[in-house]
Amino acid sequence: MADPPVRGFGEAEYAARTERAQRLMARRGLAGLLLSSEAELRYFSGFQTPFWQSPTRPWFLFVPDRGKPVAIIPDIGVPLMRAGWVDDIRSWPAPRPSDDGLGLLHDLLLPLARRKARVGILKGHETRLGMPLADHEKLVAGLAGLRFADATGIVRALRMVKSSAEIEKLAHVCAIGSRAFARLPELAHEGLPQEALFRAFRRELLAQGADEVPYLVGGAGEGGYRDVISPPGAWPLRPGDVVMLDTGATWDGYYCDFDRNFAIARADDASRRAHDVLWRATEAGIAAARPGVTCRDLFDVMRRVIGQADTATGDVGRMGHGLGMQLTEWPSLAGFDETVLEENMVLTLEPSMAYGQGRMMVHEENIVVRANGAQLLSDRTPPDLPVIAGSGP
Amino acid sequence: MADPPVRGFGEAEYAARTERAQRLMARRGLAGLLLSSEAELRYFSGFQTPFWQSPTRPWFLFVPDRGKPVAIIPDIGVPLMRAGWVDDIRSWPAPRPSDDGLGLLHDLLLPLARRKARVGILKGHETRLGMPLADHEKLVAGLAGLRFADATGIVRALRMVKSSAEIEKLAHVCAIGSRAFARLPELAHEGLPQEALFRAFRRELLAQGADEVPYLVGGAGEGGYRDVISPPGAWPLRPGDVVMLDTGATWDGYYCDFDRNFAIARADDASRRAHDVLWRATEAGIAAARPGVTCRDLFDVMRRVIGQADTATGDVGRMGHGLGMQLTEWPSLAGFDETVLEENMVLTLEPSMAYGQGRMMVHEENIVVRANGAQLLSDRTPPDLPVIAGSGP
Repeated sequence: MADPPVRGFGEAEYAARTERAQRLMARRGLAGLLLSSEAELRYFSGFQTPFWQSPTRPWFLFVPDRGKPVAIIPDIGVPLMRAGWVDDIRSWPAPRPSDDGLGLLHDLLLPLARRKARVGILKGHETRLGMPLADHEKLVAGLAGLRFADATGIVRALRMVKSSAEIEKLAHVCAIGSRAFARLPELAHEGLPQEALFRAFRRELLAQGADEVPYLVGGAGEGGYRDVISPPGAWPLRPGDVVMLDTGATWDGYYCDFDRNFAIARADDASRRAHDVLWRATEAGIAAARPGVTCRDLFDVMRRVIGQADTATGDVGRMGHGLGMQLTEWPSLAGFDETVLEENMVLTLEPSMAYGQGRMMVHEENIVVRANGAQLLSDRTPPDLPVIAGSGP
Repeated sequence: MADPPVRGFGEAEYAARTERAQRLMARRGLAGLLLSSEAELRYFSGFQTPFWQSPTRPWFLFVPDRGKPVAIIPDIGVPLMRAGWVDDIRSWPAPRPSDDGLGLLHDLLLPLARRKARVGILKGHETRLGMPLADHEKLVAGLAGLRFADATGIVRALRMVKSSAEIEKLAHVCAIGSRAFARLPELAHEGLPQEALFRAFRRELLAQGADEVPYLVGGAGEGGYRDVISPPGAWPLRPGDVVMLDTGATWDGYYCDFDRNFAIARADDASRRAHDVLWRATEAGIAAARPGVTCRDLFDVMRRVIGQADTATGDVGRMGHGLGMQLTEWPSLAGFDETVLEENMVLTLEPSMAYGQGRMMVHEENIVVRANGAQLLSDRTPPDLPVIAGSGP
């Protein structure tokens, strides 16, 4: 097991991210970016805490058109923010529903409002506002003159392309996921309740070095599963079941996101064929993923392989996405996404198909796009649907 | 170890929740509630999935003024939603950035817009919009005549008071947390990196029956810790360290949220005194928590105990909060919260204090408010700061 990378990032990385944002802001005529979401605060300040699980307190970061970001955060976060890159930290005793940071934001932005400046916020696809909507509306109403513009494109452009330090973390957590999946034959067996398999697999991910397992879903059913986003059931695994586990484990705040399919005791022909098709679709995606290709191209390449086998008429949605500080990030490997792949984008390839009587299968690997093509971050699953023979301890 | 409760809820529970919401909606003249947040979708439909980790797709539920809720969700969620209580499920092939549910929402709400109805959405304290802001603005702009009102008070009133089935789940997960904390003397020892302690404790929570551990923070430092929301560091535990672990583990989507403090090998006097003060503050909170008392009363009761010992001048913020489907929920045990406690509210009591040179301590227990007073859900921590003697395996 390789030594883990260093946690966190050097100050140079935050400085570079900020400067890149500022170059894009200048092109758009933005005087700053007002951010309120977990991933963006972390991206520009290094502020990392599980405390975002609580919706009680909002957190803000303002990236001005020059200089370092300004943090506007609850008192409780000041010691942690001080340990990082940001110098200008303004705080209030949150929660304070009558003024949860609004007064501080108002003071910061008023000079910009007076000169009728434009400030970027995140309003676009895959973004969420990190404060109550009423507070947002109040803030906007109180800053007459200030124009708010959607800056999703700026943050998207930055975050889609990963630094070498980010790729190291992603490679590390993908290796952790691969090692945990490699132990599935020891963890899964006939008679084990699906719920117990999930629990054992979570514990294995942690034992292999994951910090957290924020995401684990799966499916199981005789001759295939029907659903891929459910929590586990209490029923036992049976011979002939096809089982899928899909995990988003994290290390230092970066996600892996891939899955494995396997059968208990025996695999039916239809499921074996589905696995073969998806394996080849993924293979085609791996071969095609290189700088200059669009997300739609990559989607089409995988869909073509599946189209030769799948008779389903439904819309297959997307077949992969960006991966980083969030389980799913821009871009989408989908017909609507014309994003051109660049070196150091990290992606999931995630082809899926319907088969048989309402069955479906999804397969997923993680790659980083290099100058010469895709480099796998997850250990490639074998072409043949693995069969776990064991009837239990 | 007691058998776990039954997972999920019966249809009667969803029907009762919906009817209660409808009674409150009638009083406010609302034709429906448009919901887009995880906890609220789960509360009214039973739809439970870790898939919310992905921000790519929005999910909507409309609770009309009579009848069952209507789900407007991505195709990928239809099989899971169908397994639940909701009958009217409308879906689209998400992600589709050009129309991620907006067309379906528009069709649903247009008749209400035509009769200039009022629809409730969540805009208030501790709420978040579950869709991109630009999509929300587009929806509102496209429904001229429809008036949107803040319905936070309705959902807050409902969710604050737990059903007996909810309390069973909360009691179960608190018992899991208590059993895991009881094993700390076997898990923690001098020389163990804080990070390894966190990992071992997460695995223990899972072994004791937790489904997930979405929240684990802590602090450690000689003679006390300085920060309570950080992820763990790599440094080893040393004699004289005061260590705190605070976990939000879940079972069937319900959280425990309490912490434990302990010292490694020996405890300094100041930390022992702080623990004693917080233990007594909690005791006062337990004694005072009963129907009819306000959150502010409960806050004052605990603050008075701390005030006798703490010389810190800073604002102590709040000293506890609601607990349920989220790590922190309404109400707040704080000076600003006049909520009157009702039977079957589940709360954390979480007094904290500053002491020494920039040290702080926080203590937390979980209770349910019964007709005759508080019932503990977490096993009460001992009055004296526990000292873990072991120098390791």
